[in-house]
Amino acid sequence: MARIGIIMGSDSDLPIMKDACDILDEFQVDYDVTVCSAHRLPHETAEYATGAEDRGLEVIIAGAGGAAHLPGVIAAFTILPVIGVPIKTSTLSGIDSLYSIVQMPKGIPVATVAINGSANAALLALEMLALKDTDIKNQLLKYRQKMSAEVLQKDQLLKELGHSKYLKQKEAGS
Amino acid sequence: MARIGIIMGSDSDLPIMKDACDILDEFQVDYDVTVCSAHRLPHETAEYATGAEDRGLEVIIAGAGGAAHLPGVIAAFTILPVIGVPIKTSTLSGIDSLYSIVQMPKGIPVATVAINGSANAALLALEMLALKDTDIKNQLLKYRQKMSAEVLQKDQLLKELGHSKYLKQKEAGS
Amino acid sequence: MARIGIIMGSDSDLPIMKDACDILDEFQVDYDVTVCSAHRLPHETAEYATGAEDRGLEVIIAGAGGAAHLPGVIAAFTILPVIGVPIKTSTLSGIDSLYSIVQMPKGIPVATVAINGSANAALLALEMLALKDTDIKNQLLKYRQKMSAEVLQKDQLLKELGHSKYLKQKEAGS
Amino acid sequence: MARIGIIMGSDSDLPIMKDACDILDEFQVDYDVTVCSAHRLPHETAEYATGAEDRGLEVIIAGAGGAAHLPGVIAAFTILPVIGVPIKTSTLSGIDSLYSIVQMPKGIPVATVAINGSANAALLALEMLALKDTDIKNQLLKYRQKMSAEVLQKDQLLKELGHSKYLKQKEAGS
Amino acid sequence: MARIGIIMGSDSDLPIMKDACDILDEFQVDYDVTVCSAHRLPHETAEYATGAEDRGLEVIIAGAGGAAHLPGVIAAFTILPVIGVPIKTSTLSGIDSLYSIVQMPKGIPVATVAINGSANAALLALEMLALKDTDIKNQLLKYRQKMSAEVLQKDQLLKELGHSKYLKQKEAGS
Amino acid sequence: MARIGIIMGSDSDLPIMKDACDILDEFQVDYDVTVCSAHRLPHETAEYATGAEDRGLEVIIAGAGGAAHLPGVIAAFTILPVIGVPIKTSTLSGIDSLYSIVQMPKGIPVATVAINGSANAALLALEMLALKDTDIKNQLLKYRQKMSAEVLQKDQLLKELGHSKYLKQKEAGS
Amino acid sequence: MARIGIIMGSDSDLPIMKDACDILDEFQVDYDVTVCSAHRLPHETAEYATGAEDRGLEVIIAGAGGAAHLPGVIAAFTILPVIGVPIKTSTLSGIDSLYSIVQMPKGIPVATVAINGSANAALLALEMLALKDTDIKNQLLKYRQKMSAEVLQKDQLLKELGHSKYLKQKEAGS
Amino acid sequence: MARIGIIMGSDSDLPIMKDACDILDEFQVDYDVTVCSAHRLPHETAEYATGAEDRGLEVIIAGAGGAAHLPGVIAAFTILPVIGVPIKTSTLSGIDSLYSIVQMPKGIPVATVAINGSANAALLALEMLALKDTDIKNQLLKYRQKMSAEVLQKDQLLKELGHSKYLKQKEAGS
Repeated sequence: MARIGIIMGSDSDLPIMKDACDILDEFQVDYDVTVCSAHRLPHETAEYATGAEDRGLEVIIAGAGGAAHLPGVIAAFTILPVIGVPIKTSTLSGIDSLYSIVQMPKGIPVATVAINGSANAALLALEMLALKDTDIKNQLLKYRQKMSAEVLQKDQLLKELGHSKYLKQKEAGS
Repeated sequence: MARIGIIMGSDSDLPIMKDACDILDEFQVDYDVTVCSAHRLPHETAEYATGAEDRGLEVIIAGAGGAAHLPGVIAAFTILPVIGVPIKTSTLSGIDSLYSIVQMPKGIPVATVAINGSANAALLALEMLALKDTDIKNQLLKYRQKMSAEVLQKDQLLKELGHSKYLKQKEAGS
Repeated sequence: MARIGIIMGSDSDLPIMKDACDILDEFQVDYDVTVCSAHRLPHETAEYATGAEDRGLEVIIAGAGGAAHLPGVIAAFTILPVIGVPIKTSTLSGIDSLYSIVQMPKGIPVATVAINGSANAALLALEMLALKDTDIKNQLLKYRQKMSAEVLQKDQLLKELGHSKYLKQKEAGS
Repeated sequence: MARIGIIMGSDSDLPIMKDACDILDEFQVDYDVTVCSAHRLPHETAEYATGAEDRGLEVIIAGAGGAAHLPGVIAAFTILPVIGVPIKTSTLSGIDSLYSIVQMPKGIPVATVAINGSANAALLALEMLALKDTDIKNQLLKYRQKMSAEVLQKDQLLKELGHSKYLKQKEAGS
Repeated sequence: MARIGIIMGSDSDLPIMKDACDILDEFQVDYDVTVCSAHRLPHETAEYATGAEDRGLEVIIAGAGGAAHLPGVIAAFTILPVIGVPIKTSTLSGIDSLYSIVQMPKGIPVATVAINGSANAALLALEMLALKDTDIKNQLLKYRQKMSAEVLQKDQLLKELGHSKYLKQKEAGS
Repeated sequence: MARIGIIMGSDSDLPIMKDACDILDEFQVDYDVTVCSAHRLPHETAEYATGAEDRGLEVIIAGAGGAAHLPGVIAAFTILPVIGVPIKTSTLSGIDSLYSIVQMPKGIPVATVAINGSANAALLALEMLALKDTDIKNQLLKYRQKMSAEVLQKDQLLKELGHSKYLKQKEAGS
Repeated sequence: MARIGIIMGSDSDLPIMKDACDILDEFQVDYDVTVCSAHRLPHETAEYATGAEDRGLEVIIAGAGGAAHLPGVIAAFTILPVIGVPIKTSTLSGIDSLYSIVQMPKGIPVATVAINGSANAALLALEMLALKDTDIKNQLLKYRQKMSAEVLQKDQLLKELGHSKYLKQKEAGS
Repeated sequence: MARIGIIMGSDSDLPIMKDACDILDEFQVDYDVTVCSAHRLPHETAEYATGAEDRGLEVIIAGAGGAAHLPGVIAAFTILPVIGVPIKTSTLSGIDSLYSIVQMPKGIPVATVAINGSANAALLALEMLALKDTDIKNQLLKYRQKMSAEVLQKDQLLKELGHSKYLKQKEAGS
């Protein structure tokens, strides 16, 4: 049964929201993925949020762009923590999405992450679950160690090769 | 029976939204005024919008600030024209409100006016009603003439007094 | 006879404004399309707006970019509802167009939609006509149902395929 | 023992962060309040974050303005959920604080709320605790009902008095 | 007969536009001052611009705020140089005015000065007249020398008094 | 002998500034083109400006990007009218250039045109020369007529072909 | 003999630039203070910068607002390190000043600090001098310790009094 | 032994930071290059900064993007001058990086250069070293002369070829 619900306003947001899926796959935490527009499917959006807890969801990650109402509308119908992911837009680069998500009024919070920051949304959801789930907590600690090790490795390689060779090798590899 | 519904997310928006009421009073067109938060009263907001047409409303004017979801949420539940008024905010001056209202996705339009522009929201609503209401149409034409006359009068006074005296007289009067 | 006038400041705006045409074609509502610059053809612009009602127009959709004066200038010469479409610009992404259109002074409203949001401009115009035209009203309701069904279908497919296969299939299709 | 840590970069942030304290007082959830600059006390900041879990903290709320590094620096040293409150600044209105907090890189999330939105930071922290604490969950549900009731009451009063009297009464009361 | 026309969209712009008058008074160059809204008096605005040259005007200074169309509309009807003054607005601080004035399309230039920079608008107009008027040219050279002398005098006083006393004396004087 | 000086901070600005050259070529007004950085060649910049009038220049067009000091520095050394062209930048899209040019302090005006608006800079320069040069004045009037005719022609073609065929033909032609 | 030159575009910048003086007074490092506009006194500005090293200056702190050219112009005439202080402006809050100072082209750097951040400009200058001056270096270390101690003291007081009493005491004291 | 430390938050910043390396290579001043994330390697970042002086570093250049904490965190742990390079981001173009770096609180300065301006960061570092190193000082003077000569050469070529041929030749060469 899914513990984390990932929902987005349009399937055009999926390439970005997939980063959240990848993190949760890596942590082997169950989630489900839903496309549901706050504007085109307002009733379904309300139902999704109202029934979230009963379906077993503990945290909801909602991605949306432009006048990005989805996270806030979800948050209005549930007291589960809602994490908002502002999606980059072609006209305003996601500043519209960011303001529409982060500037919520007193009473109904949305935990906002960076524009296109859906990987961090997943990690934030996992940090919340880790408050009562030691396995996830241990995985988070290992994930941090892995990240640190990766940067250290890159730094070591940079120092061995020098920056010119490092850049060439990186360009060749990408 | 009210033909125009004025709705706002908080009673702190009322001093701004009052400008819309004043215009409608001047035109003697019936309206009602509602405080209803898209986030704190999501069910009531949905009901307001869903039942709007049956209650006789023809146009809805919705004012909101910050992550200003109210106009867009209303628009999601009705095909009546919805006019959005972005309210100036203390932190971002209303740019947040403007982006949250104007950047609606394809399919669900909100007719957005200037930040704090609730008087124009009322005039826009009247222009819509004037499409089938000759009395309102004639009033709108007279309103424009009155506005023109006022500017012309000011210009005439400015030319009589010169700009220095005009400014002093204006400051004294205000 | 055209009921909706679509006007734009330059034929470079046509690829964006075409979205409005497509919506109106789908609804089989008559419209005409005009290129007329507020700055290069100020007299013709004034004539266009002044004579709009006599020519049978009920709503005007005006698209413009940069110092986007066209919608506001049209609105100055008519009490027909004017819908402004801010066109994305190569330098300021359409923020210039948006501010130039939405920040109209008291007395002369322009109903502003999203940057490049000409499809919504058409739907907004139709919502206005629907106030007195039951056929358009019924079409609008069906249009909303069609939109809802499309999102639901996508969501169903997403749930059947899972997000990875869905993304691959989508990329293959595009 | 404190379950929620409230930390801020300067005691000039306290009038804003006090809103979080008030919420937590109302919910009778223990918290402690700390002034600790990421720039002036970097070692103490690291210690605060590193030892947070051992001291019993479950969630950290960090407020900062300008180049607001405190929430991100705290998040770098702990896997407890960190909620960032961008404080409004005198020069850039808090856009600097918002960007510095919300645009965290992949791997180290900060749950960002609105500029000056410390009350929502507290509610978000409570939503996280409610994942395992039924008492807080029930209190959150009641808090939402209370908020709803307050808006409904205002709306009822507005309808009884009309908007003019309502505004006068409100001005008199404030 | 006036050589420079000063025109503004509203008499609320007069306290700012007065700075232009003061400069022209100091240079003893004739000008006239007009209040004429591009939106409320579109015909009069067109007439003002079309007849400007015949009335003897050589340069037009146009101030406007918000969706500041006046300078651009004037420029559309005349080939006299038009100088635009973006007026600071209460909501967007004049960024809206600036973009609406400066981002004119190819073919119809408006010479834009700083937000509220009407004094510079007057000096720019005088620089244009100085191209054929030696008296104005000499006055401009003297004006520059006077400005230089004033800064030098302040610098000398600052060096005599030291910055602490200088500030106190300045505060006492203001 | 050149009457108009075109100067730019870097030869990377030349593709944009060339538009000004093209206009002046069309009007057969003499100009010269100079690359001279306010930062890398401050003495030469000062000399350019100080000697401009003696070399016969009547108007200076200065293009620059980023911390675009060139127009303002030129203006500090001459009372000839200086027209500033903000060049679009790869990081901030030219907002940096625009603010650096348009926000000049009282006393030293720079006539600012749109970002990348060098064609309008040339037309503005010609409008200034037209104050004493009837030939240029007549050319300007013809230029306006030509522009009007072009838009009218496009509009006529659009009406003949319909917008779909017009777009296809335009795409084929480009 | 002054080691640090503090220069500003207008004496209206002095209340802000005074913070730099206060820091340097505290460190007992000699400095001089100059008012000199890059636009009104371009020759004197060039002389100031060109002769700076011969007069004994080692670092220059330049404050300016709006189209803030002073730091960049100074930097063009000297290879001494130039620190730019963007002054907050009444219209654009200092974003104009910031962009005009920080976005310098390749080759001529200006070390930019926060808007109104003249105290940090002084500290940065001292850090540069400390590279060869052990006394200043030791003072800087003590200054940091003092700052740390002040925050720690505030935190201790906050913990003794609780946040409510602390706030009241602070308000009473201010 | 390295005198200048170049550090960046991610190896994706290296193509930008390489410009700083190139300048230092040209000046034959020793430096080292480090990848070290303030968020993923907070302890290592603190160590890097704390031990910088003992390792012989005199100036630190730190590049970071987004919530760019690295320069500020480094500055918190050392009194060596820290130069911050805001890296352009894909969503907010580097405005987020710029604000996160430049808006440092009183007490802990970061010398900020332009977005992606790492070459200027290196030159600024060299200007600091030149305060006590005559060889670097002389090289800086020559570097400026070389830059001036390059612009002069381009200007001469432009005048020989005319702008049309110059542009063609440049396009062919690039």
